[in-house]
Amino acid sequence: VAKRLQAVVSSSGGGSGDREAFRQAVVNTLERRLFYIPSFKIYRGVAGLYDYGPPGCAVKSNVLSLWRQHFVLEENMLEVDCPCVTPEIVLKASGHVDKFTDLMVKDEKTGSCYRADHLLKDFCKEKLEKDSTLPSVKVAELKHILAVLDDLSAEELGAKLKEYGITAPDTKNPLSDPYPFNLMFQTSIGPSGLSPGYMRPETAQGIFVNFKDLYYYNGYRLPFAAAQIGQAFRNEISPRQGLLRVREFTLAEIEHFVDPEDKSHPKFVDVADLEFLMFPRELQLSGESAKLIDLGEAVRKGTINNETLGYFIGRVYLFLTHLGIDKERLRFRQHLPNEMAHYAADCWDAEIECSYGWIECVGIADRSAYDLRAHTDKSGVSLVAHETYPEPREVEKLVITPSKKELGLAFKGNQKMVVEALEVLNQAEALEIKAALESKGEIEFEVCTLGKSVIIKKSMVSISMEKKKEHQRVFTPSVIEPSFGIGRIIYCLFEHSFYTRPSKSDDEQLNVFRFPPLVAPIKCTVFPLIKSQQFDEVAKIIARSLRSAGISHIIDITGTSIGKRYARTDEIGVPFAITVDSTSSVTIRERDSKEQIRVSIDEVASVVKEVADGQSTWADIMWRFPTHSASHVDD
Amino acid sequence: VAKRLQAVVSSSGGGSGDREAFRQAVVNTLERRLFYIPSFKIYRGVAGLYDYGPPGCAVKSNVLSLWRQHFVLEENMLEVDCPCVTPEIVLKASGHVDKFTDLMVKDEKTGSCYRADHLLKDFCKEKLEKDSTLPSVKVAELKHILAVLDDLSAEELGAKLKEYGITAPDTKNPLSDPYPFNLMFQTSIGPSGLSPGYMRPETAQGIFVNFKDLYYYNGYRLPFAAAQIGQAFRNEISPRQGLLRVREFTLAEIEHFVDPEDKSHPKFVDVADLEFLMFPRELQLSGESAKLIDLGEAVRKGTINNETLGYFIGRVYLFLTHLGIDKERLRFRQHLPNEMAHYAADCWDAEIECSYGWIECVGIADRSAYDLRAHTDKSGVSLVAHETYPEPREVEKLVITPSKKELGLAFKGNQKMVVEALEVLNQAEALEIKAALESKGEIEFEVCTLGKSVIIKKSMVSISMEKKKEHQRVFTPSVIEPSFGIGRIIYCLFEHSFYTRPSKSDDEQLNVFRFPPLVAPIKCTVFPLIKSQQFDEVAKIIARSLRSAGISHIIDITGTSIGKRYARTDEIGVPFAITVDSTSSVTIRERDSKEQIRVSIDEVASVVKEVADGQSTWADIMWRFPTHSASHVDD
Repeated sequence: VAKRLQAVVSSSGGGSGDREAFRQAVVNTLERRLFYIPSFKIYRGVAGLYDYGPPGCAVKSNVLSLWRQHFVLEENMLEVDCPCVTPEIVLKASGHVDKFTDLMVKDEKTGSCYRADHLLKDFCKEKLEKDSTLPSVKVAELKHILAVLDDLSAEELGAKLKEYGITAPDTKNPLSDPYPFNLMFQTSIGPSGLSPGYMRPETAQGIFVNFKDLYYYNGYRLPFAAAQIGQAFRNEISPRQGLLRVREFTLAEIEHFVDPEDKSHPKFVDVADLEFLMFPRELQLSGESAKLIDLGEAVRKGTINNETLGYFIGRVYLFLTHLGIDKERLRFRQHLPNEMAHYAADCWDAEIECSYGWIECVGIADRSAYDLRAHTDKSGVSLVAHETYPEPREVEKLVITPSKKELGLAFKGNQKMVVEALEVLNQAEALEIKAALESKGEIEFEVCTLGKSVIIKKSMVSISMEKKKEHQRVFTPSVIEPSFGIGRIIYCLFEHSFYTRPSKSDDEQLNVFRFPPLVAPIKCTVFPLIKSQQFDEVAKIIARSLRSAGISHIIDITGTSIGKRYARTDEIGVPFAITVDSTSSVTIRERDSKEQIRVSIDEVASVVKEVADGQSTWADIMWRFPTHSASHVDD
Repeated sequence: VAKRLQAVVSSSGGGSGDREAFRQAVVNTLERRLFYIPSFKIYRGVAGLYDYGPPGCAVKSNVLSLWRQHFVLEENMLEVDCPCVTPEIVLKASGHVDKFTDLMVKDEKTGSCYRADHLLKDFCKEKLEKDSTLPSVKVAELKHILAVLDDLSAEELGAKLKEYGITAPDTKNPLSDPYPFNLMFQTSIGPSGLSPGYMRPETAQGIFVNFKDLYYYNGYRLPFAAAQIGQAFRNEISPRQGLLRVREFTLAEIEHFVDPEDKSHPKFVDVADLEFLMFPRELQLSGESAKLIDLGEAVRKGTINNETLGYFIGRVYLFLTHLGIDKERLRFRQHLPNEMAHYAADCWDAEIECSYGWIECVGIADRSAYDLRAHTDKSGVSLVAHETYPEPREVEKLVITPSKKELGLAFKGNQKMVVEALEVLNQAEALEIKAALESKGEIEFEVCTLGKSVIIKKSMVSISMEKKKEHQRVFTPSVIEPSFGIGRIIYCLFEHSFYTRPSKSDDEQLNVFRFPPLVAPIKCTVFPLIKSQQFDEVAKIIARSLRSAGISHIIDITGTSIGKRYARTDEIGVPFAITVDSTSSVTIRERDSKEQIRVSIDEVASVVKEVADGQSTWADIMWRFPTHSASHVDD
């Protein structure tokens, strides 16, 4: 059943019922085999909180290891590890205290809380699905609402809820007007109650506030990247979508600091030939779907803003497909202008298709200088970079010299304010005044701090453009930020890896996760073929050699039938099974192909390690060892 | 200077001034090289919060990898990963809501908060150190207070503060009476404000609440262990001791579940021959110091309560010394009876000596059935294990059969309450009633739910001991819990690894961290001996091979003098330096011995990997390759 369902889900025509049945099959297996456990289950759990049980925890740890290897080690990134507890001022600077909100409505009688956009969305969807008598103008209206849902203001949302007579789903009571609810978990630092703090909603701010030290650590050279893996928190109003929208999750974030005037990347050539599904703005606006685009071309044509952004998009593609994400159900979608923050230069999401639809799993944004500037402004500490010129450069610079004597005589006690107002003129304003003074001899000049205009005469200020030698350029670096939702990636990976196959007797379907060896929670099992003290001894020797090679494994000498043991371990995605059928050599069976090879006992641990570490593939190994054709099992 | 200081610190006679100078030297290096950064430094930081900068983060990640390898993989532990946000009911059951407190006093005018015991401790210490005129009876009194400080109640502490006239340290204002302050960071889950939650103060509870699922996952077999690595939080009143007492930290905890009637351990023999510093209760009480004790003997003699506890003590010893903790400054101290929770069977701390004194870094406790019982009581979900007997066993069991007819006639509507009260009698009570009924025919019987006594007659209940066949035993497992403060271990490791040596010119001291290769943040550096395009190319080829072998490294082709480059990398503890001085072979220099060997370019990455992964030691490698005696450098 699941196989058919999966086929249906992959194709675009999959009905939502089929998708849900497929998801249920996956989630049942995940929960039964403890990949996940609803947290605090014996106390009836808490919505949006999940534990990783043993195999889930191992998968997560493998995914993070690969992430470190693929990104941090490959690019010599500076990894940091900052606390989750964050004082208010940091999140005030970043904008989270004021803007990290969702619109909420309350049941006016019971006080139950709902996300306003969810209620409107559910209403529109249900109408569209169930009411076949809907006039076409109404259909168009509801579809339009669904399209612009994320852009509606509190007032607009409130008006729509009223217009459609939407009430509280559980009680049918009237609802309050929508108002913003901040999604950060709030707490208090120290005993006084006077230092508000929050559990960080992302790990990025910990990197930004350390820019100065990290730039120093990197020998004052740009570009460089810092990275952080850690917990982030989001106090969702009403978590839905199971494992995809949770209240606490692991993020892995990279902040790549680069000169805004040079966003080229020396290693872009390594990824330029990749071709994969992209969904640029124009395709979305013209109602087309994502299509295969060459990465090099996308950057050349300006579809992707710059090489560095393109480089990371390529690297993210390689990372995800390496993990086992199906490349047919992975696309890079560009943000539409209205989705992007005003400061962002460009932004692409790696979206993975699963039974919930296309899910944003990695965001890759060119955030320009926004974050460093925000913290410079709030902290007063200048977060900038320097470029020392090989030769001093001659530049024209505006020089404004107020004549304090003349100004003092004219404005007495107000002199200081006038001087300051003159000194902060920008180039255009200054040159305008200069021209006016030269033509008319005086000009009316507004001094904000005085709240009035004064008359400036030619003798009171000298304005000129002078040539100066400059030795360096001072600038705020741009930030290119790939940000990975690790839990979402893992959940999608579970769906993409799941399949079923008939058991030999064909009376039931067996579940399999086809994890690549690198990701698999347990790399291999060791089974004696038959109950025998000799074989048990060999199995223990092999287990010991696996342990000292650092290979996670299960040894099972209980004597259960081999077929059952395979079924049990296929279901947690163990890629290799070692069967002990002699005292000199053993067979290794690969999970998906069921192919078997024969390997000597001394070599077996190093062979498994080679494939598990990703140094060789199963196909490589098949070449080197004799295949074993007599099937051991009812499998 | 630091070398001398270190010698002083190691010996017992070290003055506190020397210790502080040594600590300052270590901490300066740690902060300058970004092992640590005070969090949110540009906003003047938050007491008790620190970031790990790049080398610190790498050390932490290496320590955790080794922990996983040494504990989780070696024992096939079930690793889980639970959220930090925890609902109140869980921490109510564990006792943290009621008891996880420190006693606090407030400055009555400014509201500033202080830990009451800190103020009393500081007062006593200062008096003892500075007042040489103190009569001996007073000296004894103050020393006694320091000894029992942790056991003082709020009232006793308050009385002492008053008696000694202790005021607020900054303002000399009067202080409030001491009162308990809960050290958990509180928050609110969901938007309603009605679900209080806390940031977990330890990771253990996440494991306990999952006992049932984990026991199932382990095939209903005991013993088994679960493990968790994660953040924990403690809202300290006024953090002191720098990096040792922080508000957010990484814990690694193991909960080993075992049959309380059989705490033997099959692998105890593997550690029984270890001999190391132990500090059992008797030695502490008799004023002696820790001494070398054989682990097997300690368990045999009952100094350590049981084999499983002994096994973990041995494994912790191996883990810490493997990391590079000096075994002369590591001791296992047994808790005194007044330190232990009433339910604990035995408890030992791995204490590491550093400039702050002996610091508790790992706690290894036999917590008996306490935690599982607490969650069983609170949740109503039975957290127990079963032992199926090979043969059914005959046991005598109490059988209470109330006669509903007689009781109904006698008590009408109250019948149900009387029946229930009879059914929950324990064996002693029931047999007492049986005896009374047989001798007197009736008995007065208190029914709590009725709030009164009733008269029970012989005809109303039959009480007997019957022989029954039992097929299994149901019991609450005991928990043996090794709990690791990862940050504290790392800080002590930094102190134990730090030393200085003179530079060639002897005008300054160079700092070195002698991290073992497994722990070192960067495994090797690659330097061309002289500025040359050919050598630069070779350096890049080597860097590429290191990268694909997963070896963290620094390549430096800036042409700075080799001596300076060594000094810079010794200071972050890089164990190996590869110097490119030809196009066919290179030299590898070991950090502490400064010995060099010559290795061909093709082999260099695999050689470094071998030592960095701990498969070979430098001594092994020295045997295999020619030594290179001509020193390259002013080193």
